[in-house]
Amino acid sequence: MSQYLNARYQTLEVYTPGEQPQDQVYTKLNTNESPYPASPRVVASIGKKELEDLRLYSDPDLKPLVAKLAEVYGLSPAQVFVSNGSDDILNFAFMAFSGQPGRAAFPDITYGFYQVFADLHQVTPTVIPLREDFSVDYRQYLNLDQMIVLANPNAQVGRALPLREMEEIIASNPDHVVVVDEAYVDFGAESCVPLIAKYPNLLVVQTFSKSRSMAGARLGFALGNAELIADLNRIKYSTNPYNVNRLTMAAGVAALEDQAYYDENCKKIMSTRAWTVDAMEKLGFTVFPSLANFVLAGHPAMDGEAIYRELKRRGILVRHFSTPRIQNYNRITIGSPAQMALLVDTLREILGGETS
Amino acid sequence: MSQYLNARYQTLEVYTPGEQPQDQVYTKLNTNESPYPASPRVVASIGKKELEDLRLYSDPDLKPLVAKLAEVYGLSPAQVFVSNGSDDILNFAFMAFSGQPGRAAFPDITYGFYQVFADLHQVTPTVIPLREDFSVDYRQYLNLDQMIVLANPNAQVGRALPLREMEEIIASNPDHVVVVDEAYVDFGAESCVPLIAKYPNLLVVQTFSKSRSMAGARLGFALGNAELIADLNRIKYSTNPYNVNRLTMAAGVAALEDQAYYDENCKKIMSTRAWTVDAMEKLGFTVFPSLANFVLAGHPAMDGEAIYRELKRRGILVRHFSTPRIQNYNRITIGSPAQMALLVDTLREILGGETS
Repeated sequence: MSQYLNARYQTLEVYTPGEQPQDQVYTKLNTNESPYPASPRVVASIGKKELEDLRLYSDPDLKPLVAKLAEVYGLSPAQVFVSNGSDDILNFAFMAFSGQPGRAAFPDITYGFYQVFADLHQVTPTVIPLREDFSVDYRQYLNLDQMIVLANPNAQVGRALPLREMEEIIASNPDHVVVVDEAYVDFGAESCVPLIAKYPNLLVVQTFSKSRSMAGARLGFALGNAELIADLNRIKYSTNPYNVNRLTMAAGVAALEDQAYYDENCKKIMSTRAWTVDAMEKLGFTVFPSLANFVLAGHPAMDGEAIYRELKRRGILVRHFSTPRIQNYNRITIGSPAQMALLVDTLREILGGETS
Repeated sequence: MSQYLNARYQTLEVYTPGEQPQDQVYTKLNTNESPYPASPRVVASIGKKELEDLRLYSDPDLKPLVAKLAEVYGLSPAQVFVSNGSDDILNFAFMAFSGQPGRAAFPDITYGFYQVFADLHQVTPTVIPLREDFSVDYRQYLNLDQMIVLANPNAQVGRALPLREMEEIIASNPDHVVVVDEAYVDFGAESCVPLIAKYPNLLVVQTFSKSRSMAGARLGFALGNAELIADLNRIKYSTNPYNVNRLTMAAGVAALEDQAYYDENCKKIMSTRAWTVDAMEKLGFTVFPSLANFVLAGHPAMDGEAIYRELKRRGILVRHFSTPRIQNYNRITIGSPAQMALLVDTLREILGGETS
């Protein structure tokens, strides 16, 4: 830290991303990437001309992509905001909608960045513990009188609330924005998008990083009332208006034109998830019900950190969190059937070794 | 604006980017893009595999690119910060280094985003007027006891301070960071990079957008003391750690491996600039001396806005600012020789029509 750093940021606890070894030697089941490549249409959308044209700025309004997203989700372009990944949008939402002084409610076990954004923007968090079974008790989010941020399905755990419970939360907090982080919604949960017409305080945040195999492209979007979207644009145009790459915009449009490819991938991942849960339960794991492209799992015979370490030693990366309530578990991305078979075989070997 | 927007952001005056028509019908001389395509090595660095691998997150530490930049600039990797364009870095610098309560000094005519960042972060600006000839009087920046932000060459105008004057500014403000925005440095000005070893309060910000023909890739970097760089990383890891696209990182490394190509382009642009200044002066224009890839020019017989409008009507975009001191001028990007010949012919026609 330099002597020049603003006192307000000196004690920030920054976000710790999952390991991202770039050598690809590991079987990477730690950051919820898709095992399936970007669509052939995405690949075809970027050639010599697009690469040479990197010399030109991108369109800061991202009009073609905004129009396409509006069409896909049945909204008007004024209800669509696009930015550099959903982290970027969540950061803007904390800036824009947490109030003054800032307050925001979210679960104790969820996406770790919410706490980081709260610290960054001097927002007082209301941290609401999950139930013992790591589910969200929606009744605890009614009439909270502050911004609410809920990942649905919830990060780290994978459990999702049904639409009617989400609607009760949104309806009971009309004076504050409810941010629904739907990064994982395409793997079987119910989206809140149909509620947008009804609730001006609802902001749905989605991403191309998971179901659309574009984590490395940096593309997230938010859907909501046109006034909320205008507020987000105000923040974006005061920080970094050109933050989405030209190639990413082209890739995003191409991806939306190949929805069938991604739907198929999501189906495969859901089926692989069912296989994985079953196989892990047979090995004695506790696996929480998940509607995401990952599962949270722990074993009574071996602690979570040891399992993480043993898997890594054998070339498989999963995500271990040292957060007390989940430190005995690991979050495991659903990869390809072959990757999950390797995982299960490796876990069997580790547990066998441990118990022999 | 929604009823939910934080009061603090309700009066923000956002940055207005230059027009970015995506149809490419215009001769675009309005946003200081390079007329030359990204290098063939950049084009070759991105193929089917890299596009399919968009499914994977980028390396948030951008190690290969940081290492390459360190090598090119003769620094250690700990002295290099990479982020999503230099706007992103300038925003972080305002957050990190403006103090509490925040203060920052910059010229009245310069990159418009400095004032936007000041507003955004509640930083009180000390706005120092340029001299009558639109040059920076470096003596006004000595012993200011606050963060200083200087574009060198200066934005909009193109004039640059010599290294010895920059050094006096940096040396006289040891308790505050001096941010030197070198977006345009590769077109003939002196860089402050050699001063980094000597001054822990110097932060040099550069970009791949201008001389390296990658405006649409979103890639900026900062060079400075390792502690300043650690501070910037602290902010980045609290907002959006993955903000640089995988493809952009690969393209950045490839660009740095083809420095000769970009050096050649810069030489061509400097030579085209000399030709343009000469031809415009012959038409009666006042053109300010520029070491950037643009010139600021006005004509005694026709006001700046009218020239902008007439050029646009004829298919040529230049940048007109309504800022009082420069409203009678236009900022004109140095394009290819053919584009500048077209510009000069068109200006001759406009002025002829006007005076006939």
